Amino acid sequence: MNIYKLDITVRGYELDSYGHVNNAVYLQYLEQARWELMRELKLLDYFTKNGIMVVVTESNIRYMREASLFDELVIESSYEKISPYLVFHHKIRNRQTKLANIRATIKTVLLDKQKKPLELPDFL
Amino acid sequence: MNIYKLDITVRGYELDSYGHVNNAVYLQYLEQARWELMRELKLLDYFTKNGIMVVVTESNIRYMREASLFDELVIESSYEKISPYLVFHHKIRNRQTKLANIRATIKTVLLDKQKKPLELPDFL
Amino acid sequence: MNIYKLDITVRGYELDSYGHVNNAVYLQYLEQARWELMRELKLLDYFTKNGIMVVVTESNIRYMREASLFDELVIESSYEKISPYLVFHHKIRNRQTKLANIRATIKTVLLDKQKKPLELPDFL
Amino acid sequence: MNIYKLDITVRGYELDSYGHVNNAVYLQYLEQARWELMRELKLLDYFTKNGIMVVVTESNIRYMREASLFDELVIESSYEKISPYLVFHHKIRNRQTKLANIRATIKTVLLDKQKKPLELPDFL
Repeated sequence: MNIYKLDITVRGYELDSYGHVNNAVYLQYLEQARWELMRELKLLDYFTKNGIMVVVTESNIRYMREASLFDELVIESSYEKISPYLVFHHKIRNRQTKLANIRATIKTVLLDKQKKPLELPDFL
Repeated sequence: MNIYKLDITVRGYELDSYGHVNNAVYLQYLEQARWELMRELKLLDYFTKNGIMVVVTESNIRYMREASLFDELVIESSYEKISPYLVFHHKIRNRQTKLANIRATIKTVLLDKQKKPLELPDFL
Repeated sequence: MNIYKLDITVRGYELDSYGHVNNAVYLQYLEQARWELMRELKLLDYFTKNGIMVVVTESNIRYMREASLFDELVIESSYEKISPYLVFHHKIRNRQTKLANIRATIKTVLLDKQKKPLELPDFL
Repeated sequence: MNIYKLDITVRGYELDSYGHVNNAVYLQYLEQARWELMRELKLLDYFTKNGIMVVVTESNIRYMREASLFDELVIESSYEKISPYLVFHHKIRNRQTKLANIRATIKTVLLDKQKKPLELPDFL
C-alpha cells in the first residue's frame, strides 16, 4: 500500500478564535491530499474527461493534537478499494515533532454525470 | 433529550467545483449549531468568562444527499454527557423535502486555560 | 435605485484568531448578497440556463468597525450599469446599533461560456 | 523597497462553482503573504508579545486573470509606511506564464490591546 505525502504549512486565516486550526479546516487539508493523490495517479484528467466526481460519503476523524500558525504538517494518505467505495486513510503529523495531529478515514464513491455510482476502475 | 434547531440557507460560496455544498462546509454548519445551542443554554458567557474551550476530539459524518444553492436546511442537534466527553448528535435535513443530507456525531471535551480536560459541569 | 437587504448573523467559524470577523469573510457575505439579489431579480435561472457567469473584476472595501460572534448584520446592496460593468454598492451595518461595519464597491462583468464579456441585458 | 515572495499552489476546495479560485480566497492568500512577511521581519513575536493586532482598514483588488486547480502562484508583496497606516502592495502572478492574476493594495493599522491605533514602530 503506497503512502502519498503532502506538505502543508498552517496559514493564519485557518486559525479560529481559539488560535488553533479549526476542525473543519482539516477536512479541507484532507481533500487537497486526495486531489494531489489523484493527480499523481493521473486520475484527474481521466475523471474530468469522463465527468466523474469523487464524492465523500463518510468521514471519521480523530483529533489528537492542535496545530498552530506556521506549523509544518505532513499529510500521509493511502487508499483501499472496498467496492464500490474508495476508502482513504489519512494521518496528519507535525514534521518536526512527528506527533500526530489527526487520523482520518474518508469513504468516497465515484459518480457519473447522472450521479449514479460507478464501479471502481481496474487501474486504481 | 432536547432537540435544538438551527435554520441555514446554503450560500453560493459554500459550493465547490462540483456545484454542491463541500464536505468540509457541513462541519462548519455543525460548529455553528453548537455555538447556537451553547448560547441558548447560557453556556457561552460562562465558558468565555472562565476561559473554557469546547474542543472537538472526534467527528463522524455520514453524507446522504447533496445540498445545492439556496437549499433551506434545518440542523437538529442534541447532546449527551459521556464524561468527560460532551457528545453532540446532529442531523441536517432539507426543510421542504424533510430528507436528510447528513447525520453526524461530534465528540467534544471542555478544556481550561491550561488546556487540561475539565469535568462536565452539573448544570449541563 | 432599489436597495436589496440581506440579514446575516455572524457565525463562530467566521472569526479569526483576533476574535472578530476575518476581512476575507466580508467578501463572502457580499457575494451571497449578490446571489440573493440575482435570485430576487429572477436573473439566476436566466444566467444558469445561458451559462452566463458573473465575475468580479474589482473590489474596494473600507472596513470601519469589527463584527463579533452573533452580531446581527444587514447587508444593503444596490447596482448600477456602467456598461459593460455591473457595479454593486454594498454597506454592511449592525442591525441594532445601525453603525456601519464596511462599505464596498464591487465591479463585475458578465461572461459567456467562452469567457467573453457580454453586454448587460436590457431588463437589468 | 523589498519584495517578499510567497509560493502558493491552488487547492481544490478553493475553487467555487465556476471552477476557478473564488474572489474571497485571494484575500486569504494576501493575508497569509502578510503573515509570512511579518514572520520574516521578526515582527510576529513582537506583535504577539505586546498584544498588537494588524487590522485591515481598506482593501482594493483588481482581478485580471482567473486561477485554476494546481496553478502555481507567486505572491509578491511589499509595504510602505504612510503613518499611521502600514500599506501593503501585492501582486499575484502565475509562476509559469508570469501573467498577473490580481493586483492589490491593502491598508492596515496597528492596534493595541485597547484597540487604539499605534504609531508605526521605527524598525519597520
